[in-house]
Amino acid sequence: MPTNRIEADYLLETPADPRRVADLMAGEQSSGTFVAIPGETPELKARVAAQVIRLEILDETAISPSLPSAHLNLTPGAPVLRAKVTLSWPLDTLGPSLPNLLATVAGNLFELKPVTGLRLLDIRLPDEFAAAYPGPRFGIAGTRQLAGVPRRPLIGTIIKPSVGLGPRETAELVSDLCRAGIDFIKDDELQSDGPACPFDQRVEEVMRVINDHSQRSGKKVMYAFNLTGDLDQMRRRHDTLLKHGATCLMASINSVGLVGMVELARFSQLPIHAHRNGWGYLSRHPLLGWSYIAWQKIWRLAGADHMHVNGIGNKFAESDESCIASARACLTPMFADKPCTVMPVFSSAQSALQAPETYRGLGSADLIVTAGGGIMAHPLGVAAGVTAMQEAWEATLTGIPLTEFALNHPSLQHALEMTA
Amino acid sequence: MPTNRIEADYLLETPADPRRVADLMAGEQSSGTFVAIPGETPELKARVAAQVIRLEILDETAISPSLPSAHLNLTPGAPVLRAKVTLSWPLDTLGPSLPNLLATVAGNLFELKPVTGLRLLDIRLPDEFAAAYPGPRFGIAGTRQLAGVPRRPLIGTIIKPSVGLGPRETAELVSDLCRAGIDFIKDDELQSDGPACPFDQRVEEVMRVINDHSQRSGKKVMYAFNLTGDLDQMRRRHDTLLKHGATCLMASINSVGLVGMVELARFSQLPIHAHRNGWGYLSRHPLLGWSYIAWQKIWRLAGADHMHVNGIGNKFAESDESCIASARACLTPMFADKPCTVMPVFSSAQSALQAPETYRGLGSADLIVTAGGGIMAHPLGVAAGVTAMQEAWEATLTGIPLTEFALNHPSLQHALEMTA
Repeated sequence: MPTNRIEADYLLETPADPRRVADLMAGEQSSGTFVAIPGETPELKARVAAQVIRLEILDETAISPSLPSAHLNLTPGAPVLRAKVTLSWPLDTLGPSLPNLLATVAGNLFELKPVTGLRLLDIRLPDEFAAAYPGPRFGIAGTRQLAGVPRRPLIGTIIKPSVGLGPRETAELVSDLCRAGIDFIKDDELQSDGPACPFDQRVEEVMRVINDHSQRSGKKVMYAFNLTGDLDQMRRRHDTLLKHGATCLMASINSVGLVGMVELARFSQLPIHAHRNGWGYLSRHPLLGWSYIAWQKIWRLAGADHMHVNGIGNKFAESDESCIASARACLTPMFADKPCTVMPVFSSAQSALQAPETYRGLGSADLIVTAGGGIMAHPLGVAAGVTAMQEAWEATLTGIPLTEFALNHPSLQHALEMTA
Repeated sequence: MPTNRIEADYLLETPADPRRVADLMAGEQSSGTFVAIPGETPELKARVAAQVIRLEILDETAISPSLPSAHLNLTPGAPVLRAKVTLSWPLDTLGPSLPNLLATVAGNLFELKPVTGLRLLDIRLPDEFAAAYPGPRFGIAGTRQLAGVPRRPLIGTIIKPSVGLGPRETAELVSDLCRAGIDFIKDDELQSDGPACPFDQRVEEVMRVINDHSQRSGKKVMYAFNLTGDLDQMRRRHDTLLKHGATCLMASINSVGLVGMVELARFSQLPIHAHRNGWGYLSRHPLLGWSYIAWQKIWRLAGADHMHVNGIGNKFAESDESCIASARACLTPMFADKPCTVMPVFSSAQSALQAPETYRGLGSADLIVTAGGGIMAHPLGVAAGVTAMQEAWEATLTGIPLTEFALNHPSLQHALEMTA
């Protein structure tokens, strides 16, 4: 691509001529409006207008419109066309600004009248964006170093019940998990700093356990404390984490938003575990919103170190194929000189069972896998839950089928029976 | 409602038993997970679990699933049920935190496997939220005072072409608009601080024109400068606005995000004109995402003073009925002691024509209406475009049909012909 233009790929559906609608999209997102206006001269358009640089009709057959449009006469079964459309914009209009990029590539155009489906599939950014934003400060290497896990996946868990435990009870659970050999623990996204489990007390109690365990064993478990909150609260909580020797923080991307995440990344001295809860409302309909391929680029450049990607056999509506494509995207470099690769985080109904398929799909052991119920509900207890996960990955990385490995590994055996 | 619980209403669609799915939603968004876990005791559940407090089946007839779900066998035409579900949460789990509220009421639940449709319809918050957040600092009264328009709607426009004009050219257009008697002007959401029209220079040039006009005429036109950007940039731009005597700023909500908007509202000494571009990807499918009724409450409490609501006869996919419901919501008090009412902003293909229907729908003159092309493309020029808008509202507020008023008001006459 030309180095000074921004590109975005869309999946478009319309009952009108897709070429005309692509032109409308380009106009709406640059110099045009709904009527011709005197100031939009040919010179100005040549300089600043967004351009339709590719358009490929995908389906010639008639299908029903995916989304209603109040001012069109759409009937179920009415003919619509789908097309892949690429628009480009000159960088000079907005500069290398992520917030203004959102307004440009993902602004009003989803609402255009003749659009019965529009999904942002991918974006490509000029190098100026790489220079303007921090990207992940820790990424894969930094996370592995802090967690003391050089090569295999980080085996992790989520505090469960998600809410309801106090600081002391949380620390007791963490103590069990440390003894069981866990690498990584995270707060649930519902648990930040409520009166029932205050952040500062939780950090103090949990880090005492983690630091004691580290002193004894040499292994410092990485705990991602959920500091999601207003900016002043996140700053204060971050400093509390530093003070107690924590090695990771967690924030909910869709709660914090882009400017908050960029600011967090600028002041954070810890890896940022980025939780994507709310992703469903951005992506659940296949002809609306965001693909993860486009979306994750924004947050990696903003400074996330770990990105949630759901998991194989998850409890949600997403296919395994989609989950794997998301995880592979996290490991795909964004810029030649600034790859911004991050740890994909597999979660949701994860257990020992999914290790082989996860590894086969991703083609890498650079990942974090978090199992909540899959560890906490192990019939032999939490320690056996962690051991089973470790055994599953040991088997997977050495190419041994789980059922075979389980023959003389009872923790794994029970895990396979539990989740079968 | 009990004062210490948060409530959220959802439109749910599922091929399963809606009662069971509502329980699943409540579990996922509080103490549950996909398997029973030892720590989730009856005592803990009684204390922290989300509760299904209302459930009303809406359709008993079979319809097709709205959204795909990878792990369900769904076929087009398969029977699904729709229900209105209300969940409630104890405030103690999260405290009065807007970011954590999002993770709670709009987190993972959109992705649940048996959910083929889920839309957040409304939220109700305990008074603790009103105490924790600023709400609109200027709102309707403050905006009217700064703009010098005590009773009628603020007649506004958007700089068009949206992008492509430099600071000097923008100021020249503003000069014409000031002379034409406009109340309000806004940057387009695509124009913030790109190299082709730097923010500081634009403010300097535009405010010189506005201040000069104010000196001469006594009327200070309100200009909403789009300062959308990273936090340090927004702070600096805000101070630039203060220095030059500007009276409004604009930010794109979905670009800035919640934490950034809260922070902006905390330091801003100017009314915040909140642009909703991107709203389509949050709302366009009727069985997914957010209703505006729920969504606008978040941003009003965060500190927005003006909220975009689209417009009657807009160029987008939204119905007029939906637009009016959104605007009425902006004028509906949120808390007894802190109403947080804001100016609804009507835009998108607006012209003189829509005044009567807008007024009839809203039942109030507390609004801003912005016409871009509707003013810029008036056949007699920009001044006549503004005059036509003023005449349309004068006619509407005095109960005279536009066509009758236009008989001896040629600007309005031409506007009606242009948009007919």
